[in-house]
Amino acid sequence: MVDQPVRPEAHVGDAEHLGAFSDPLTPLVLLQRTARVFPTKEAVVYGDERMDWAGFAEFVGRFAAALKRDGIGLGDRVAVMLPNVPVHLASTFAVPLTGAALVAINTRLAPAEVAYIIEHSRSKLVFVDPELAGQVDLSRVASDVRVVNVLDRQAGLTDSPLPGPTFDDWIAGVDPLPIENTVADEFQMLSINYTSGTTGRPKGVMYTHRGAYLNALGEIASLRFGQETVFLWTLPMFHCNGWCMPWAVTGAAGTHVCLRAVRPPEIIRLIQEERVTNFNGAPTVLRMIAGDPAAQGVVFEPRVRVCTGGAPPSPADLKKMDALGVDVTHLYGLTETYGPHVICEIQDEWRGLSLEERAELMSRQGVPYIFSTYLRVADPETMEDVPADGATMGEVMMRGNNVMAGYLDDTEATATALCGGWFHSGDLAVMHPDGYIELRDRSKDVIISGGENISSIEVENAIYEHPAVHEVAIIGVPDEKWGEVVKAFVTLKPGASATAEEIIAFTRDRITHFKCPRSVEFGDLPKTSTGKIQKYVLREKEWAGTKKLVN
Amino acid sequence: MVDQPVRPEAHVGDAEHLGAFSDPLTPLVLLQRTARVFPTKEAVVYGDERMDWAGFAEFVGRFAAALKRDGIGLGDRVAVMLPNVPVHLASTFAVPLTGAALVAINTRLAPAEVAYIIEHSRSKLVFVDPELAGQVDLSRVASDVRVVNVLDRQAGLTDSPLPGPTFDDWIAGVDPLPIENTVADEFQMLSINYTSGTTGRPKGVMYTHRGAYLNALGEIASLRFGQETVFLWTLPMFHCNGWCMPWAVTGAAGTHVCLRAVRPPEIIRLIQEERVTNFNGAPTVLRMIAGDPAAQGVVFEPRVRVCTGGAPPSPADLKKMDALGVDVTHLYGLTETYGPHVICEIQDEWRGLSLEERAELMSRQGVPYIFSTYLRVADPETMEDVPADGATMGEVMMRGNNVMAGYLDDTEATATALCGGWFHSGDLAVMHPDGYIELRDRSKDVIISGGENISSIEVENAIYEHPAVHEVAIIGVPDEKWGEVVKAFVTLKPGASATAEEIIAFTRDRITHFKCPRSVEFGDLPKTSTGKIQKYVLREKEWAGTKKLVN
Repeated sequence: MVDQPVRPEAHVGDAEHLGAFSDPLTPLVLLQRTARVFPTKEAVVYGDERMDWAGFAEFVGRFAAALKRDGIGLGDRVAVMLPNVPVHLASTFAVPLTGAALVAINTRLAPAEVAYIIEHSRSKLVFVDPELAGQVDLSRVASDVRVVNVLDRQAGLTDSPLPGPTFDDWIAGVDPLPIENTVADEFQMLSINYTSGTTGRPKGVMYTHRGAYLNALGEIASLRFGQETVFLWTLPMFHCNGWCMPWAVTGAAGTHVCLRAVRPPEIIRLIQEERVTNFNGAPTVLRMIAGDPAAQGVVFEPRVRVCTGGAPPSPADLKKMDALGVDVTHLYGLTETYGPHVICEIQDEWRGLSLEERAELMSRQGVPYIFSTYLRVADPETMEDVPADGATMGEVMMRGNNVMAGYLDDTEATATALCGGWFHSGDLAVMHPDGYIELRDRSKDVIISGGENISSIEVENAIYEHPAVHEVAIIGVPDEKWGEVVKAFVTLKPGASATAEEIIAFTRDRITHFKCPRSVEFGDLPKTSTGKIQKYVLREKEWAGTKKLVN
Repeated sequence: MVDQPVRPEAHVGDAEHLGAFSDPLTPLVLLQRTARVFPTKEAVVYGDERMDWAGFAEFVGRFAAALKRDGIGLGDRVAVMLPNVPVHLASTFAVPLTGAALVAINTRLAPAEVAYIIEHSRSKLVFVDPELAGQVDLSRVASDVRVVNVLDRQAGLTDSPLPGPTFDDWIAGVDPLPIENTVADEFQMLSINYTSGTTGRPKGVMYTHRGAYLNALGEIASLRFGQETVFLWTLPMFHCNGWCMPWAVTGAAGTHVCLRAVRPPEIIRLIQEERVTNFNGAPTVLRMIAGDPAAQGVVFEPRVRVCTGGAPPSPADLKKMDALGVDVTHLYGLTETYGPHVICEIQDEWRGLSLEERAELMSRQGVPYIFSTYLRVADPETMEDVPADGATMGEVMMRGNNVMAGYLDDTEATATALCGGWFHSGDLAVMHPDGYIELRDRSKDVIISGGENISSIEVENAIYEHPAVHEVAIIGVPDEKWGEVVKAFVTLKPGASATAEEIIAFTRDRITHFKCPRSVEFGDLPKTSTGKIQKYVLREKEWAGTKKLVN
């Protein structure tokens, strides 16, 4: 439990009047204000369903009223296992409005993981999409949890696969609650987002109302969201609550365009028909869109702003998106930092550079967002900053209002993650002389060959320049002499061809030889639900039978 | 003293890790971040002086270090009696950085009032401009206060009129403090802004670090400040700390263009030469600019965004500014709400209307800002909202993070102003069916004639349409039969002429007859330093010898 530090000699204001001059920070007030100020403006689009802000607020109010009728209130948890449909968007307001915390489950998880999260979070209700029902096996959950089936007329999913009411039946007959600030304490828990860890049990990252509000207001300021914003939901809403953008786009009175699945032709159609101004996606998603036949010859007008994260966009990605009429903003963060914490701000001077040079600068992760303030690259042993020389590696650390309040019911992991008053990201980076950080690796992914640290991203970027390469992942593999050497896993473009020898020679033309792959394997790459390449899967195979710790 | 309400059942986060996930809110971090991210970008322009953000941060750091050397710290107060020069801008960061509160004195006040404010605030230091030295008479101040003379090479003011060092000498030889968050408690006092009350002693309105930070971040979000913003300082920085815009423009990494005095030809020149994107000013200032010979034939390109407040812009003002290439945003608030609390948001549907119709809608004060949330028009007796019928008058009330923490050392006035958990503005308004408020009068200015309430603004707007009228003020004057009747005080445009009979006939063609002036007097209007017409001066003369309370 937290008590605010108080300095009586300077602290002002009479407790009697606290309610007049201090309102607990919460994203709930963003919907409250938008529904009041822009009641008839388009709020949510999904297929041929359209809601204005008054309608969406009423829907959220009914959703919350039904939760309350079912006994949900302060301190409870409610889970959703849903794609980016309007009910998922509404849950980001309706669940917190009751005082409960939202648990948005990664829709690509296996039944055992889903069951673990429902039980660990002590969720009392779970809202399930018909297509995801197979992953929700309540026989594995010891605690008492009820299901609501969220059917989807737009997708033709009109039958309930699980026992329990349909959402429409469940919500029928209640009077909507007003949208207002129901939060007495801004450090109240707003949501729990389970990390899709590569090993061990998922950990429940706790967000507070205060953190989410500041994040949302800061995103509006930083990304220039406004009434004219039309936001396409390509980023999963279960991913850090959609990087807090359900609250930010709502606060700005923009329009949410919901999307069931990431299918490039539909994305391209929606961008043009709904006049989409913004979407988010990992570089993998950008590559899918740029490479789709439906994108050929298309230049979006007006231009679209895309926030990308999860991996740095390669210079080649940035060039392709530019040609498509897309301006890429590179963000970086983790579930533990409410999604993005770092933004690659464009400096005025960069405008005079070639696209190639700009792309190089923009592939760096960058500087703190306006609301995140604190970012350093430090030696985790000594907690001293590395020199800003663009070469010395250290661990990326963050702190402040954009950092989680801890892991649910895991004091030990919380203490490790937040030790020394900073969140330890586990990512390795360098600090450039201009104050921009550049990720060099996940600390668990670092390759040490002959005592030299090798950044797998640097090697990957070099290989991405090869015209036949669609995707590449670099890992270290065991070597008698060097400890580890570099191996590349490559997916080629459809119809393209290249040999291992060609790839190696191509790389040796570009970067220091000891960093180049000794071997290349071709094939599909294993990926997480959010499009991150799962290097640990590759590593497990390569290191089987050795003593090296495989993360 | 305030303790945050705590709900143990939902409150999350371990006190041990508080520093990792909760940072006290303060505008200091906005400069910290901007100086780190945009060190070489232009920060401050004043005549031929130019500073980049690294330079400005270093200047602020030296300023704060010199304050500290002089014993200034937590709980102290430091006053400035300065026009909008760089030292004033720097003081909005340097003083809070030491833990002290800034007292920015209205530069048009008389010596007795200035002395009262210095003494009442217990300011230990006062920074004085040579041209304002005549108003700073320390022989009237009982407490111990030292003067620093802030000379101004740009204005040719190079001699110290008061005993005490020059700013340059005073600041020499110190090592700059780093710009960082020195605030342990976000409810710490940041500044004290004395209201220029029409009667009685000025009251010291207390701002907190939390309130100012949220206001600044919200202004960036709402007014779309960014790196490209070039902000011209026409609004006095002593007015609600420049509506918190020293912090907002800094947080956005825009550029401040300082300005010693409001002189239309220089404003017009600076807008064009410095490519100004934003400035603020009361309608009086806008009229001065639009009416200046230097503005004839000018259309600013790109267009300039002006926030106006203090009085509603008349439809005629809006039309003139539009022709000049200026987009007007109408804001409303009071010193007690950190400046603006209300914004007249433009709805999409308005774009289809004629300029005339739009101007009518835009002259209303509007709806809550994104960060101010709470706004109502209520009966101060019953605290019930008036119906949203655009006709029933009530008092405008606000609450939330954008409301002052109280009046310094004035428990009684604080309790009256914040009673019932809402700040009572003293302004009368109606609530329109679309949720927009429209001010009808200061409650103390209301004219009651034959039992009917008359809105002086409505009468003034009608008279402003007369082609010969430059400015007008409406008050009630004593009348045997009706209690009060309406009288107009009019300033004509240079070279224009009109008779009282013509003005009255013109008004009777436009509004209900009982609201029309019975008499018209021609001449200059008395004004406050911020350009507000001082109706009480007019009223005092008219009501001399009667029993009516003159405010």
